[in-house]
Amino acid sequence: MIIVFKSGAPDAEIQSLDQEMRDWGLTPEKIVGQHKVVIGLVGETAELDPDQIKDLNPWIESVLRVEKPYKRVSREYRHGEASRVEVPTPKGSVFFGEPDPIVLVAGPCSVENEEMIVETAQRVAAAGASFLRGGAYKPRTSPYAFQGHGESALGLLAAAREASGLGIITEVMDTADVEKVAEVADVLQIGARNMQNFPLLKAAGAQPKPVLLKRGLSATIDEWLMAAEYILAAGNSNVILCERGIRTFDRQHLRNTLDLAAVAVLRTLTHLPIMVDPSHGTGWARFVPALAKAAIAVGTDSLMIEVHPNPAKALSDGPQSLTPDQFDALTQELGVIGQAVGRWPQALAAATA
Amino acid sequence: MIIVFKSGAPDAEIQSLDQEMRDWGLTPEKIVGQHKVVIGLVGETAELDPDQIKDLNPWIESVLRVEKPYKRVSREYRHGEASRVEVPTPKGSVFFGEPDPIVLVAGPCSVENEEMIVETAQRVAAAGASFLRGGAYKPRTSPYAFQGHGESALGLLAAAREASGLGIITEVMDTADVEKVAEVADVLQIGARNMQNFPLLKAAGAQPKPVLLKRGLSATIDEWLMAAEYILAAGNSNVILCERGIRTFDRQHLRNTLDLAAVAVLRTLTHLPIMVDPSHGTGWARFVPALAKAAIAVGTDSLMIEVHPNPAKALSDGPQSLTPDQFDALTQELGVIGQAVGRWPQALAAATA
Amino acid sequence: MIIVFKSGAPDAEIQSLDQEMRDWGLTPEKIVGQHKVVIGLVGETAELDPDQIKDLNPWIESVLRVEKPYKRVSREYRHGEASRVEVPTPKGSVFFGEPDPIVLVAGPCSVENEEMIVETAQRVAAAGASFLRGGAYKPRTSPYAFQGHGESALGLLAAAREASGLGIITEVMDTADVEKVAEVADVLQIGARNMQNFPLLKAAGAQPKPVLLKRGLSATIDEWLMAAEYILAAGNSNVILCERGIRTFDRQHLRNTLDLAAVAVLRTLTHLPIMVDPSHGTGWARFVPALAKAAIAVGTDSLMIEVHPNPAKALSDGPQSLTPDQFDALTQELGVIGQAVGRWPQALAAATA
Amino acid sequence: MIIVFKSGAPDAEIQSLDQEMRDWGLTPEKIVGQHKVVIGLVGETAELDPDQIKDLNPWIESVLRVEKPYKRVSREYRHGEASRVEVPTPKGSVFFGEPDPIVLVAGPCSVENEEMIVETAQRVAAAGASFLRGGAYKPRTSPYAFQGHGESALGLLAAAREASGLGIITEVMDTADVEKVAEVADVLQIGARNMQNFPLLKAAGAQPKPVLLKRGLSATIDEWLMAAEYILAAGNSNVILCERGIRTFDRQHLRNTLDLAAVAVLRTLTHLPIMVDPSHGTGWARFVPALAKAAIAVGTDSLMIEVHPNPAKALSDGPQSLTPDQFDALTQELGVIGQAVGRWPQALAAATA
Repeated sequence: MIIVFKSGAPDAEIQSLDQEMRDWGLTPEKIVGQHKVVIGLVGETAELDPDQIKDLNPWIESVLRVEKPYKRVSREYRHGEASRVEVPTPKGSVFFGEPDPIVLVAGPCSVENEEMIVETAQRVAAAGASFLRGGAYKPRTSPYAFQGHGESALGLLAAAREASGLGIITEVMDTADVEKVAEVADVLQIGARNMQNFPLLKAAGAQPKPVLLKRGLSATIDEWLMAAEYILAAGNSNVILCERGIRTFDRQHLRNTLDLAAVAVLRTLTHLPIMVDPSHGTGWARFVPALAKAAIAVGTDSLMIEVHPNPAKALSDGPQSLTPDQFDALTQELGVIGQAVGRWPQALAAATA
Repeated sequence: MIIVFKSGAPDAEIQSLDQEMRDWGLTPEKIVGQHKVVIGLVGETAELDPDQIKDLNPWIESVLRVEKPYKRVSREYRHGEASRVEVPTPKGSVFFGEPDPIVLVAGPCSVENEEMIVETAQRVAAAGASFLRGGAYKPRTSPYAFQGHGESALGLLAAAREASGLGIITEVMDTADVEKVAEVADVLQIGARNMQNFPLLKAAGAQPKPVLLKRGLSATIDEWLMAAEYILAAGNSNVILCERGIRTFDRQHLRNTLDLAAVAVLRTLTHLPIMVDPSHGTGWARFVPALAKAAIAVGTDSLMIEVHPNPAKALSDGPQSLTPDQFDALTQELGVIGQAVGRWPQALAAATA
Repeated sequence: MIIVFKSGAPDAEIQSLDQEMRDWGLTPEKIVGQHKVVIGLVGETAELDPDQIKDLNPWIESVLRVEKPYKRVSREYRHGEASRVEVPTPKGSVFFGEPDPIVLVAGPCSVENEEMIVETAQRVAAAGASFLRGGAYKPRTSPYAFQGHGESALGLLAAAREASGLGIITEVMDTADVEKVAEVADVLQIGARNMQNFPLLKAAGAQPKPVLLKRGLSATIDEWLMAAEYILAAGNSNVILCERGIRTFDRQHLRNTLDLAAVAVLRTLTHLPIMVDPSHGTGWARFVPALAKAAIAVGTDSLMIEVHPNPAKALSDGPQSLTPDQFDALTQELGVIGQAVGRWPQALAAATA
Repeated sequence: MIIVFKSGAPDAEIQSLDQEMRDWGLTPEKIVGQHKVVIGLVGETAELDPDQIKDLNPWIESVLRVEKPYKRVSREYRHGEASRVEVPTPKGSVFFGEPDPIVLVAGPCSVENEEMIVETAQRVAAAGASFLRGGAYKPRTSPYAFQGHGESALGLLAAAREASGLGIITEVMDTADVEKVAEVADVLQIGARNMQNFPLLKAAGAQPKPVLLKRGLSATIDEWLMAAEYILAAGNSNVILCERGIRTFDRQHLRNTLDLAAVAVLRTLTHLPIMVDPSHGTGWARFVPALAKAAIAVGTDSLMIEVHPNPAKALSDGPQSLTPDQFDALTQELGVIGQAVGRWPQALAAATA
């Protein structure tokens, strides 16, 4: 249930209602939008009477039920307004969200050594990325495959952050590692295989860093939003959703089927910002540019692209990685579409011109 | 197997080799590309020796085997060059193919009556469409649902063609109707449910009109290309492939999952032109604009959009149909992306400016 | 809508009501069950008042609406009673249906020559099959693959029928061939790829031979039942449904995923008899026995098994074909389960003992 | 790579070779089969020469490479012999494996209170179950749904064990809970959503209790075996695989598609015992009996069935739960098939007769 205040409602009135709700045993959440303030209520609201609440205060514009199974992530919960996830980085805050420029995240599948991760960070930063991706802990199908360098790789990511000014996005797979990863990462990634690892979602919700939640391999959109709801319900509303391809019957030419329509659907269902990962989404570097362009056209807020200094020798995911030179060229290509839809970072647009 | 001639090879030399192949019992196909001429050979070529053929004529540049299960539709068969499907319409020839401007096809799911089909044709023509789509014969899940007006609707399509100057694309479902439909249609459509209706593919291959082949609901890309190969093998090389969404596990918010990566994959595998149908691909009018833009960005040669004068009263597929006004607005939006990728029709671009 | 008569309702009363319904412009269908007679009404029944109809005749027990989108195939349409499809064969009528013994259908994918088809027929007849399967017209993914011997193969099937006493089940793919195939076949097969070939369904419904309708590769159960409804709506109520595996994401070890739960679901939704094809359902001969046993345990009325005298040299589907010796051994194995569920043919049970 | 010893090879010879392999820096695993002893080697075996190893000892019969990506779980690793997982319970050891009688596991989705879990345990024990299932920690799609009573429920499971003599199978979702759960559980369950939770797999492999590994919602068979390999590679070879239905395009009548053919496939690929869960596999109590019978016919080693004293009031999964009376009746029905395939527990068979 949400309580929407009229424009210009005085803070004191909002506070007073907030307190009243607490007195009723509820846990109100205050959401400050561009034009209006909303108080969200989740929990035992079934027996509340919207009209009765409305009568409590003349500054209340309306009291509405959220009809979806997910509450806090629903677009209604912010009365239709998109949210903006702010992530501090060495170069200043970066914003993920509908009105903001598209955010580029790039980097290798896994952190292999200091030289490669620092070099990659510097190269992708120069090409326009705001974040470095890179795995310290890697979910691998085989126990005999490279599992990531773990804790030591976290240190290398910190070094790359220092050297490049990029924010760091890296995956956490185990509740036991959340604190450790959150010390280094600017954004915690929860991978596709852990989308319904509920203890991990709760732990990510209970720490302060923003969370990037990838869609499960065969997760429905509703399940994905419910997974995000776990994080918000645990207290962290800075969540970004990342479409990375779903599993279908044809895997001859593509590793996954990138579900770009999901971006358009999410826009209507949730206020959370959206990222698309065409590297995992296709599995092949040669298809990344076309799908990255399509992702921008369909309305994504962000792109995650795998870049490796030497894909042929990558310890994981080589076939889907671009070289830094290819990433350079790609950002030029993307700029054309990004500018056409009016969401290309000004700095990059200038570089293109 | 293909025989590639050097640039400037004299016609007489090519003819002489063509004759020699016929003397060997083969059925050569001459393919005239922009720069080179290729002779394609399909059939009992397993025992032919490429080197021996190469020695037959000094104008032969190379003799190559087509390693794919599909031959005539493969990109190799045209030595890497995209093909161009020319369709005569009352207003002149329209070309489908990689270098040409994006072709817009629009119209209702089914032809309901003369007034609605003529009005729709005129409206979509004015907005920039080159073709009218509209079903006379409708594949419907239920035997109790409207099955299309059949033969009488073909007459109405002819009237709409006359009134609007648009080419006509309409579906044929039965080998018994091919001749009748081909009399009116400028392009014969074979629908998703008939993608592997092999007698129908053969019949479509044996008549002269171009064929639009929709992807089956759960067809792999290779199966789709093999279905197209049936048409080419039967003698008709004017085939356009239409991606219209595949069936996946999540059908809560979308009728199908539009597989836009398939466009990028097809580009590498085949020389045939590609169309995308975001109306069937999503099933909801509200998602059509975003996916149509993405389809252009990913590289489609053509778009098929459902437009109905009154979607709420449509006899079929209302929820996924745009109104003519919405289609008008959509073409403006699409123009921005279409121009960014350099493939928007000049006439329309002028209108946008 | 169905009108259920009380037990013992006199024929004249039923006839009189039937006539009254015709006078109202409806097309009643009389269905004689084991205990009761039902009159089915499909069409413009939305405005009929069940109570008003009930008052027409004191022998009417109840008047019920069929709430499903499919009417004639629904279990309600026969007031919960399974139907029995009778097929005359040279050795007498064979019955497909819930209370009857399991019917075995066996034979090669395609009819290759007279010797192989006659020999196979005799071998599978000796092992307990009642029907020979064998394709004259073959749906093949590639236009360059063996397409079946067509009309001449129909003659060979007739010879095999003569020599073995088996009934014949063979596929028809084109409306133009229905009459020709129906002359030879005891049961017309409509294959998975044609499950939604609506003109073919209508044509099969308009001829007198029973029809075997295979499930489409990614058809939902409801779509499958609607496809069967086309046949019944066209006048032919002798339809058998055949589960043959659906397409899923894992095709490494199995060609399809045999959906045995569909058998249990169909039992609750429809009165039509059910067949399972573990040969196509798995794609590998080594998995056929286990799945054939499971199909009996889950409640199938019939099994279709591919048998070829020399699978290694089969022109199609060799890897999933049993040899006649393997089929012999299989029927022994199946007998154990068939007898446990009380549905094994007595003649075969005797042979096993 | 495996080293197969001849029948009757003296222990000392095997020990000596084991030591030699250790001296080479390898980690041999000794596997004692019914007739032969095998030494398994996983790791840096690529450069070992099988012939050279064979020459080391005259008691070696053969040295073979395991060609699959999974090693320890592969059937080859035990030279073709199925393994037997022994689980001590209050009433004595229960064995899961191909030659042993089918093991019945039954109980509610989640442990709700002491009375219900003890009563259910006693009822299912009386009907023939050897294990009680019941969730203390529940993976739920919604953060607002009942999440299980957690640690306190573990105590109730211990009480139910005491009262019924059944072994306990319960799920663990978080590495942080493994020790706690392993104190009470006789078998640790890893659920479908955690099949690729690699830290959890490693933790389960590092503790001594047997592990039940459910198949992921859209996991391929190879991925599932690789997940099991994680557990074996971490030191625990007592793993049981549980098929519980996969996600497909049709969810109208069934919650999942039970992939019974996977049982037959697993039998050829792995030595591990197999369980089938028709409750999750179908999602509806009314379909459980038919699919449970089919699972026995296809060759499962074990069945997991949800039973709740009052399904209509269950806190989770009510629609797929049988009542204790229905479970009683089901075991009678299953006995018929179980005896037909020669794998029904003698005690139960006596009860049936």
